[in-house]
Amino acid sequence: MSAVNKIAVLTSGGDSQGMNAAVRAVVRSALYRGIEVYGVQRGYQGLLNEDLRQMDLRSVGDIIQRGGTVLQTARCKEFLTPEGQQRGAEVLRNKGIDGLVVIGGDGSYQGANKLSKLGIKTMGLPGTIDNDIPFTDFTIGFDTAVSIVVDAINKLRDTMTSHERSSIVEVMGRHCGDIALYAGLASGAESILVPEVPFDIREISGRMKENFQNGKRHSIIIVAEGAGKGDDIARQVHEYSGIEPRTTVLGHIQRGGTPTHNDRILASRLGDFAVEKLIEGDSAKACGIVKGELVTTDIEQVVTTKKPFDMNLYNLAIRLAQ
Amino acid sequence: MSAVNKIAVLTSGGDSQGMNAAVRAVVRSALYRGIEVYGVQRGYQGLLNEDLRQMDLRSVGDIIQRGGTVLQTARCKEFLTPEGQQRGAEVLRNKGIDGLVVIGGDGSYQGANKLSKLGIKTMGLPGTIDNDIPFTDFTIGFDTAVSIVVDAINKLRDTMTSHERSSIVEVMGRHCGDIALYAGLASGAESILVPEVPFDIREISGRMKENFQNGKRHSIIIVAEGAGKGDDIARQVHEYSGIEPRTTVLGHIQRGGTPTHNDRILASRLGDFAVEKLIEGDSAKACGIVKGELVTTDIEQVVTTKKPFDMNLYNLAIRLAQ
Amino acid sequence: MSAVNKIAVLTSGGDSQGMNAAVRAVVRSALYRGIEVYGVQRGYQGLLNEDLRQMDLRSVGDIIQRGGTVLQTARCKEFLTPEGQQRGAEVLRNKGIDGLVVIGGDGSYQGANKLSKLGIKTMGLPGTIDNDIPFTDFTIGFDTAVSIVVDAINKLRDTMTSHERSSIVEVMGRHCGDIALYAGLASGAESILVPEVPFDIREISGRMKENFQNGKRHSIIIVAEGAGKGDDIARQVHEYSGIEPRTTVLGHIQRGGTPTHNDRILASRLGDFAVEKLIEGDSAKACGIVKGELVTTDIEQVVTTKKPFDMNLYNLAIRLAQ
Amino acid sequence: MSAVNKIAVLTSGGDSQGMNAAVRAVVRSALYRGIEVYGVQRGYQGLLNEDLRQMDLRSVGDIIQRGGTVLQTARCKEFLTPEGQQRGAEVLRNKGIDGLVVIGGDGSYQGANKLSKLGIKTMGLPGTIDNDIPFTDFTIGFDTAVSIVVDAINKLRDTMTSHERSSIVEVMGRHCGDIALYAGLASGAESILVPEVPFDIREISGRMKENFQNGKRHSIIIVAEGAGKGDDIARQVHEYSGIEPRTTVLGHIQRGGTPTHNDRILASRLGDFAVEKLIEGDSAKACGIVKGELVTTDIEQVVTTKKPFDMNLYNLAIRLAQ
Repeated sequence: MSAVNKIAVLTSGGDSQGMNAAVRAVVRSALYRGIEVYGVQRGYQGLLNEDLRQMDLRSVGDIIQRGGTVLQTARCKEFLTPEGQQRGAEVLRNKGIDGLVVIGGDGSYQGANKLSKLGIKTMGLPGTIDNDIPFTDFTIGFDTAVSIVVDAINKLRDTMTSHERSSIVEVMGRHCGDIALYAGLASGAESILVPEVPFDIREISGRMKENFQNGKRHSIIIVAEGAGKGDDIARQVHEYSGIEPRTTVLGHIQRGGTPTHNDRILASRLGDFAVEKLIEGDSAKACGIVKGELVTTDIEQVVTTKKPFDMNLYNLAIRLAQ
Repeated sequence: MSAVNKIAVLTSGGDSQGMNAAVRAVVRSALYRGIEVYGVQRGYQGLLNEDLRQMDLRSVGDIIQRGGTVLQTARCKEFLTPEGQQRGAEVLRNKGIDGLVVIGGDGSYQGANKLSKLGIKTMGLPGTIDNDIPFTDFTIGFDTAVSIVVDAINKLRDTMTSHERSSIVEVMGRHCGDIALYAGLASGAESILVPEVPFDIREISGRMKENFQNGKRHSIIIVAEGAGKGDDIARQVHEYSGIEPRTTVLGHIQRGGTPTHNDRILASRLGDFAVEKLIEGDSAKACGIVKGELVTTDIEQVVTTKKPFDMNLYNLAIRLAQ
Repeated sequence: MSAVNKIAVLTSGGDSQGMNAAVRAVVRSALYRGIEVYGVQRGYQGLLNEDLRQMDLRSVGDIIQRGGTVLQTARCKEFLTPEGQQRGAEVLRNKGIDGLVVIGGDGSYQGANKLSKLGIKTMGLPGTIDNDIPFTDFTIGFDTAVSIVVDAINKLRDTMTSHERSSIVEVMGRHCGDIALYAGLASGAESILVPEVPFDIREISGRMKENFQNGKRHSIIIVAEGAGKGDDIARQVHEYSGIEPRTTVLGHIQRGGTPTHNDRILASRLGDFAVEKLIEGDSAKACGIVKGELVTTDIEQVVTTKKPFDMNLYNLAIRLAQ
Repeated sequence: MSAVNKIAVLTSGGDSQGMNAAVRAVVRSALYRGIEVYGVQRGYQGLLNEDLRQMDLRSVGDIIQRGGTVLQTARCKEFLTPEGQQRGAEVLRNKGIDGLVVIGGDGSYQGANKLSKLGIKTMGLPGTIDNDIPFTDFTIGFDTAVSIVVDAINKLRDTMTSHERSSIVEVMGRHCGDIALYAGLASGAESILVPEVPFDIREISGRMKENFQNGKRHSIIIVAEGAGKGDDIARQVHEYSGIEPRTTVLGHIQRGGTPTHNDRILASRLGDFAVEKLIEGDSAKACGIVKGELVTTDIEQVVTTKKPFDMNLYNLAIRLAQ
């Protein structure tokens, strides 16, 4: 017997690639198991606006490959208040909905946690490109974001080699340097600047100069926005070494595009898993993937823990980018 | 103290995307640890031809993003004989090379195993797009191959939707259906035909017909070459259902293109790990990644075991593609 | 004063990339000029089914970048009969529609021509990937199709170089070799086999062999489907030269994918131009682009003329692929 | 009889995609016609350094698809002086080279002009992504640059739609707005800001606001760097409308990547044509393509004329982006 009768799904916070695949998985997995399922438009704001509609198999047809989220997303100040949360729970209860899957980041999780205390069973899915959520190795959208950065650096390489130039690429990641780390390792970046590891631009500049003298034909510094502004770093490198790096700021294109197969598969697995857990009676949990296995963790714990940084991968990147 | 003094690296068998990143990692990791390293051109054939050259840091510059293999690869009958293997070991010994990293598939591994018995310490890295090597969750090139298939299916979707059509996509995988499985799950393929799971075209055809009647606007069957020829399946579907699917055979484009960041990272990790293991004195091992961790397994065991198929993922794909 | 009061637009025959951009241009250009505009679903079949809906500015929002056609397309036997055509004209007249833009190929043009004789002012836009329509240098979709073929050959190059191999790539083009010609020139294909130019496989095989002996590391034969089946050519090359080329059949992926900017721009220009011409009172014309200028030609003449083949470009390709 | 005995080719100024295809065409076309050909490394600087090598058919193998330029490029102050130019002509004469093809922009053309006065027959090919060279409809690299911008905007669309947001995309083009114009038309950008057309941010902001109120789900402003900084425009839009657009600065990725088939074909045609013209005895000419035909124009005239802006295309873009 299922612990939930009807469930809803919403996407919240910044969108990320693969959210649609997650929505599709939640809807189809629920229907497969005989549970009615509703889509909430525009996150918690839409919930308060009672902007829900029942979903069938076809509601999520032809969306697995689309970036963004068909459910849209929005910020919602009202839902930060106890009154707003109260009201959200009521909207759901009035429709007979007793389970909710929330796809988003930190703030979205906290909303789910509040709702769980008001009697709605909730599951959080990690939807954010930054990979900054702990207790999951990867978030939905991260793989696509890295692929976009790596594709941009592929393009930069050609023109840098022609000119024997250096480039600074500023990527997303306010508190978590994973996009910079993975894209940097994959692109052979000479330096990877992340908020988690202290760095010295003077030393980096010196190494760049030396490498050019030893025959390196181009040089890439990748910097997470949380570690500094690309333009500032460029100015300092110039000051210390005389080299004039070009800066590229990839911005929101890192959030767009068709999701990679990995993001679609991860989203599909997590969406299906979240429904299973709701049916089993779990609540206030964040779903994640750790060492290839699907796991749940108390949302409480997720939102109060900082994601650890993978120093092994970081050191590997440095070792190989000589 | 290192168990090897000088090492060599070669790529063998069919090429796969990420082989260059693996070569780069082997070379730079060895140099970082003070070990001399040689590149063998054209696999075991090049070894017998003494086609080796010493590598420095710049020898592997600007290759991490390139498909194919700068070391090239070739089939070599002579190396299948004890005399050939004997001669290969001698060529290495004459240059003072006592360690060898072989990047390739099954046949390449067996060559490495033979050489290890002749006194050369050897490590195998899984380089093949098919993902058909056991004791590793992923092989180098598999992620890129899946991404190419998924990109092709993205293109097919548009035109199928316009015409309300169905497509059969034949992908690589003689003994292992993983490309079909991952690409099928990621693309929302209605049916995934692989050598590991029996199927009934009559039943598949019936379900397709029914789905079209229920409003599905297009339908994809993905078939691993080991499970049948695309054209044959198309003929049978037509016979049973009246539907006329179009067939696409992706062929060798699945082996090309710039490697994804995942393949580059996997290759970098494995290449570095193989050097570490040679230095530690290991030999006749295959390196792999299992649940996110780097591991070694006796080549003997690897070449005599069949890779298990992931039925959970398969069932998930079917469940979500309703 | 406008010669038309209300117009409709439909897509017909095989779909091609950029059809959506053309539909958008027709709709917005008409509205801009104060003309009501209707979209017909599923081509002439939809017309007979009275499957029309009025379009506003938002009806064509967010489609410029999508492959396929939001109006869908279908074959329609009934419309080949005088009764069907009669009926089609009536459906339009009953709604007060006196102008029609048809986007498609040869057959679609003939339908437009018939309707013009029944009092509906019609304009044809060349929508087909094959570039087989005369009196226009380019058709909508051709540029994207070529880009897909060239991208596939980019991928093949890597793996061919690693193995010193040759490839045969079969592309679309039953009567017109332009996809093969443009993709072949752009990819440095050694041989380009098209229906318009006789060829001798024995001679081609000899040249391939010679080139390999002179140090060429890979070799591509591109063949338009109208010039032969890839597999047959491969067999003959093998027979004459001993070389074993791999065959890739790109199939319907050539018809999919997001349209290139060139196809979107061409479609936008032609869609806008067609509306302008209807307003001016023209009818039974095909719109095209010749030497960069938009032109109209009698449909009658278009459907009875064979598109000439560009031998200069062909000879250039051969000259440069030595 | 040929007017030149030996020719050389160099790339100069900023690199652009397709330069390699042009070099390949010059080399192979010369060899086909029995003329010896040399490649100069690093532009005019390399010429002064006597950094030339003779090219054969294989020297330009496997480069048609590569971005950047295998001949590399560099700025060279010395060559701006009469002494430098004198010396450049001597270096060529000492090797018996009496013809030179220069691929680049304005500055590169002026160098070629000087050399022609010193007895070297010269031809200029338009190699720059900006499309800012007059007497040619398109420059080599422009098509690829536009495709990269359009691809980036494709990605932005998804995420903007999810959030109902607006974006400002800053693209290259200091004096010429063509990248912005073509990419803007192809992407359905609401506003296209170029140096050639005056604009009023207050008015643009008002229109954006109105469009959002009428149901438009996202809005793109594309701005050529010569028309303003993205961030500045964003600030003004915010001030006038309350909308907060996100800025993306694509930077040097617009110069990289594999060239499109159009750039490869244009480069191939122009490279072949330049050799033909040198053989015929022409000199101090810029080659270009106008309305599909290859033409030459006196370099003198090219460097003193400003490229006209296509107001028809601009007006079409505005008309269709309602």
